[in-house]
Amino acid sequence: MVNFRYKQAESVVEADFEAFGELLAKADGFYRNKNGKGNDFLGWRDLTVLPESEEHDRIKKCAARIRENSDVLLVVGIGGSYLGARAVIEYLKTPYHNQLKNGNPEVYFVGNSFAGGELNTVLSLCEGKRVSVNVISKSGTTTESAVAFRILREYMESRYGKEEAASRIIATTDANRGALLSLAKTEGYECFVIPDDVGGRFSVLTAVGLLPAAVAGVDTDALLKGALDERASIFACDLSHPVYKYAAFRNIMLSRGKTNELLVSYDPDFRFMGEWFKQLFGESEGKEKKGLFPSSATYSSDLHSLGQFVQEGSPIMFETIVRPVNGDKNSPVIPFDNENGDGLNFLSGMTMDDINEKAMMGTLLAHRDGGTESVIIDFGGKDEYSLGELIYFFFAACALSGYVLEVNPFDQPGVEAYKKNMFALLGKPGYEAGKEELLAKINAI
Amino acid sequence: MVNFRYKQAESVVEADFEAFGELLAKADGFYRNKNGKGNDFLGWRDLTVLPESEEHDRIKKCAARIRENSDVLLVVGIGGSYLGARAVIEYLKTPYHNQLKNGNPEVYFVGNSFAGGELNTVLSLCEGKRVSVNVISKSGTTTESAVAFRILREYMESRYGKEEAASRIIATTDANRGALLSLAKTEGYECFVIPDDVGGRFSVLTAVGLLPAAVAGVDTDALLKGALDERASIFACDLSHPVYKYAAFRNIMLSRGKTNELLVSYDPDFRFMGEWFKQLFGESEGKEKKGLFPSSATYSSDLHSLGQFVQEGSPIMFETIVRPVNGDKNSPVIPFDNENGDGLNFLSGMTMDDINEKAMMGTLLAHRDGGTESVIIDFGGKDEYSLGELIYFFFAACALSGYVLEVNPFDQPGVEAYKKNMFALLGKPGYEAGKEELLAKINAI
Repeated sequence: MVNFRYKQAESVVEADFEAFGELLAKADGFYRNKNGKGNDFLGWRDLTVLPESEEHDRIKKCAARIRENSDVLLVVGIGGSYLGARAVIEYLKTPYHNQLKNGNPEVYFVGNSFAGGELNTVLSLCEGKRVSVNVISKSGTTTESAVAFRILREYMESRYGKEEAASRIIATTDANRGALLSLAKTEGYECFVIPDDVGGRFSVLTAVGLLPAAVAGVDTDALLKGALDERASIFACDLSHPVYKYAAFRNIMLSRGKTNELLVSYDPDFRFMGEWFKQLFGESEGKEKKGLFPSSATYSSDLHSLGQFVQEGSPIMFETIVRPVNGDKNSPVIPFDNENGDGLNFLSGMTMDDINEKAMMGTLLAHRDGGTESVIIDFGGKDEYSLGELIYFFFAACALSGYVLEVNPFDQPGVEAYKKNMFALLGKPGYEAGKEELLAKINAI
Repeated sequence: MVNFRYKQAESVVEADFEAFGELLAKADGFYRNKNGKGNDFLGWRDLTVLPESEEHDRIKKCAARIRENSDVLLVVGIGGSYLGARAVIEYLKTPYHNQLKNGNPEVYFVGNSFAGGELNTVLSLCEGKRVSVNVISKSGTTTESAVAFRILREYMESRYGKEEAASRIIATTDANRGALLSLAKTEGYECFVIPDDVGGRFSVLTAVGLLPAAVAGVDTDALLKGALDERASIFACDLSHPVYKYAAFRNIMLSRGKTNELLVSYDPDFRFMGEWFKQLFGESEGKEKKGLFPSSATYSSDLHSLGQFVQEGSPIMFETIVRPVNGDKNSPVIPFDNENGDGLNFLSGMTMDDINEKAMMGTLLAHRDGGTESVIIDFGGKDEYSLGELIYFFFAACALSGYVLEVNPFDQPGVEAYKKNMFALLGKPGYEAGKEELLAKINAI
């Protein structure tokens, strides 16, 4: 089970939590009864893909087929349609997974920007390798992904012919409508569902995240099992469960004028989990001129870049440390050196992991002395089951924290604004109206 | 030359700049006369390695030798001893550089954390490849790097024997003192200098950054030339130079209560330049309870994660967009599709790069409407010369901005705090005093 420790944040006392008691109880009701804002987007609460289900079996079968007939999987998706899968794979299989010769296909994420150079680079890496494509889009018209997929479809069809290409393209999309679903039906792509009641940032435990993860060799049974067990632990408990404490703590900090939450891990493999976290909380809470701005850092590395600011800069943040309880069993041991020129013999016999833990505790205390308080989220460690628990913990914490903030944690109305302008500038049919005005504004820059 | 555009930030008018005129003039004096706080760390101002110099020749010769006799270079360093080189290589050679078969050796950055798993992974990638090591540390006792280097030295010596290992290890360190220099002298490693008057975060244009970059195939002549030309353009100009406007703009935003600067690029290859930027500004300004917290984002990707917050969340930030004037000539063209199921034919014939530029402008205007203002830093584009200009622009902007903020932009006193605690917890000789007290504090968590 995931734990949350905040005792060391000495400025926060029980009375602070009590002050949020009413809002928290209300938030809890919304979560348990599905009757708060955005309640039709709570599909993630009970998981839409259960470990033992037809859908999960089909995902695993499809992944097994890709692992059998492909050296590379290209995942086309943006936002929630790529961050979760990439985060899970990098954390469990390292950011170097595409270079490791361990029997898993390479998995690349494309279609998440308009950077044509990156698409070219990834295609050059596919030379001489057998390729499959998983295109992930609810509508099929999200521009970044649709552009990349149009190019990739041409690539696949010219390389494999129309029929084999169709067998190597998998669409994860809406169950009933949309451009991608239509195309998939016409072409005969295998399809997986993005449920209507699960938003992109909550979709990592649907086919969106599970299929790429399974292709990369992730044990999705254990991942889902962990999430289910974390869910059960919350449902079996009351507001004393760690997830409520974390949700309340964030709002206590915000109410005191903190503007930033810095998610800290001491493991560089966690970097993209940080990106995933930033979307989850930033998009859920950043509305109505509210919200903590989510940042992330990898320590001790970033202590040598951001550490100075955290220690002595503007007192605008608190730190949330994600800590694996079970360390790395294969962590190298520091060798003894007769010369001891570097003066490190006091460390000899210790593992790097041992040192990392001491660095964490030393840093927490130093930052507290400097005025930046830290809380700790303990979770099992670097395995599928524990990561599933952690993911669900963050899901629930995000929903509860957003409800305490009195926003709808499940919409993202602000994401449309840039698209409208972009479409007008690009001459998309139906968006002509604003174009001249926008051009005039741009000319004035 | 790098340009800075701020007209579109309509809330900021000339009077705002004038209000900072006196501080800016003072900052300018400190920069030109080297007589402000931290003035003995202004070595970067005139560059310590000139394009045509003995030092640069030696760096290039060493790089050529490594390119000849090695398939992999392992760079051991933390903070400024790795971020700059990694940022330059990833931007110019893509984050996939280690997988591209383009005749350049692979370059991995290790010793920047206590994550033993990462070190193991990188060593597994070295199997069957010829390896060289560049260890970068002013003192040789920075724990993260020293630990990794102790393990790597053993690895190299057991693999190559003591003599050949020594010819494959290059030390970038202090010219006159320190544990690493002593060891290098004893063992006969080739040495390069970290100048006394250049701090880590300003060191990318010394051997610290130049050697790894040159090994990766970066044209360091052009990089240095760009930096020198940007320097000359500042020295030939007065306070109307863009660099002063940017330095003042940041302080105007801070004085209005903005807490965060978000550095935005529309190119995923720029991601680590963002990390480099975060160290440069965060460590220079985050002191005396002051400073803008630096974050970075890659658009349009992160518009689907952080975009909601920027558009509608807490109004705590402004955006600084880094924009290459010369686009990507090899950007893929959107193909025409008879079916047009995805409705993208309005884009056919355009390049992804064209679309990216429209996305940028549309986003800027949308965010402004939402209350988040953006400024634009225009620079040449993805080539060594332009990147050199940009790097120098940021160096100078950082120094000037820090002086306007009335801090010493060149020290980092807060970085020691966590180390002291960590050393006490690890039992480092000389740090025993605080240990019991720290342990008591930890037990209370």
